[in-house]
Amino acid sequence: METLTIREACEADLAFIIGLIADDAIAAARDKPTGEEATYQREAFAAIAADPCHRLLVAEVAGVRVGSFQLSFIPGVTIGGAWRGQIEYVRIASRHRGRGIGEAMMRWAIAECRERGCYLVQLTSDTRRPAAHRFYERLGFVPSHTGFKLRLG
Amino acid sequence: METLTIREACEADLAFIIGLIADDAIAAARDKPTGEEATYQREAFAAIAADPCHRLLVAEVAGVRVGSFQLSFIPGVTIGGAWRGQIEYVRIASRHRGRGIGEAMMRWAIAECRERGCYLVQLTSDTRRPAAHRFYERLGFVPSHTGFKLRLG
Repeated sequence: METLTIREACEADLAFIIGLIADDAIAAARDKPTGEEATYQREAFAAIAADPCHRLLVAEVAGVRVGSFQLSFIPGVTIGGAWRGQIEYVRIASRHRGRGIGEAMMRWAIAECRERGCYLVQLTSDTRRPAAHRFYERLGFVPSHTGFKLRLG
Repeated sequence: METLTIREACEADLAFIIGLIADDAIAAARDKPTGEEATYQREAFAAIAADPCHRLLVAEVAGVRVGSFQLSFIPGVTIGGAWRGQIEYVRIASRHRGRGIGEAMMRWAIAECRERGCYLVQLTSDTRRPAAHRFYERLGFVPSHTGFKLRLG
C-alpha cells in the first residue's frame, strides 16, 4: 500500500464523510437522509473542531480520500484516573477496502491514544459485522463487552 | 424507594466513588490500587469538571450516597449531526442493590440525553454480567453491538 496520511477533517470533507454512509449497507439503513443534514452537520463539525477531546479524521492515499473515523478522549476518575480513547464512525470507501487502510487507520488511532496516555482504547462494532470483529481481534482488541444502544425520539 | 437525588459529584465524593470499585468484583479485578490514585483522580476530576461534555454524577437516597455514574456527550457529523450520550462507570454500593437505584439512575441519564437532543444513548457492559444485561434490555437498550477493548501499556 502507498503511504497513508491521516489528518484532521475540514468542513470541505463533510460531503466525503457523509458519502461513506451510503457506501455501507448497515450504516445506510440506520442513517436515512432527512434533508436537514447540511445544517446539523456543520454544527456538529464546529462542536468537534472546538473540543480537543474529539477529533474527526480523514485518511488519504496519494492525495485521494479513502476513509474516515472519529477519535474521542474520555476522562475517568477510576483506573488510576487515566483517560480512555474511543473510536467511532470507522468508514472506508468500498472501492478502497481490502488494501490495509483500516488497519493503518486503527494503528494510527491506537498510537495517538498511547501518546495521550490513555490506558484503554474502546469501540463497538455491530454484531452483523463478523469480518470487522475478526479484524479488531487481530489488532489486539478483546470482545469483552456487549454494546447496548438505545435509540431516542 | 425513597426519593433518589442525582447531583454533580464534587471532589469530596472521590473517595466514595473509588470505594465503589472495591465493592464490585469485576471492577476490582481490573482496577488494582497503585498508590498513585489520589493525584491522578484529582486531575481527572478537574478535566471532567472543566468540560460540559462530561458529567460525573452521584446518586443519594435520604442524604446517603448510594451510587455513581459518568455521562458523556459525543458529537458526530452523521445521523443528522446529532449527539450521542454515553454512560460509563455505573456503580451501586452493594448494600443498596436491589432497590431500583440503578433503574432510577439510568432513567435519569436517558432523560438528560433526550433533553440535550441526543439521538442515541450507549453503554457497554462486561459479558460476565448477565443480570446487568437483562436490566439494560428491560430499559429498552438493544444489545446490537460487540464492545471491544484494547488495554494499553
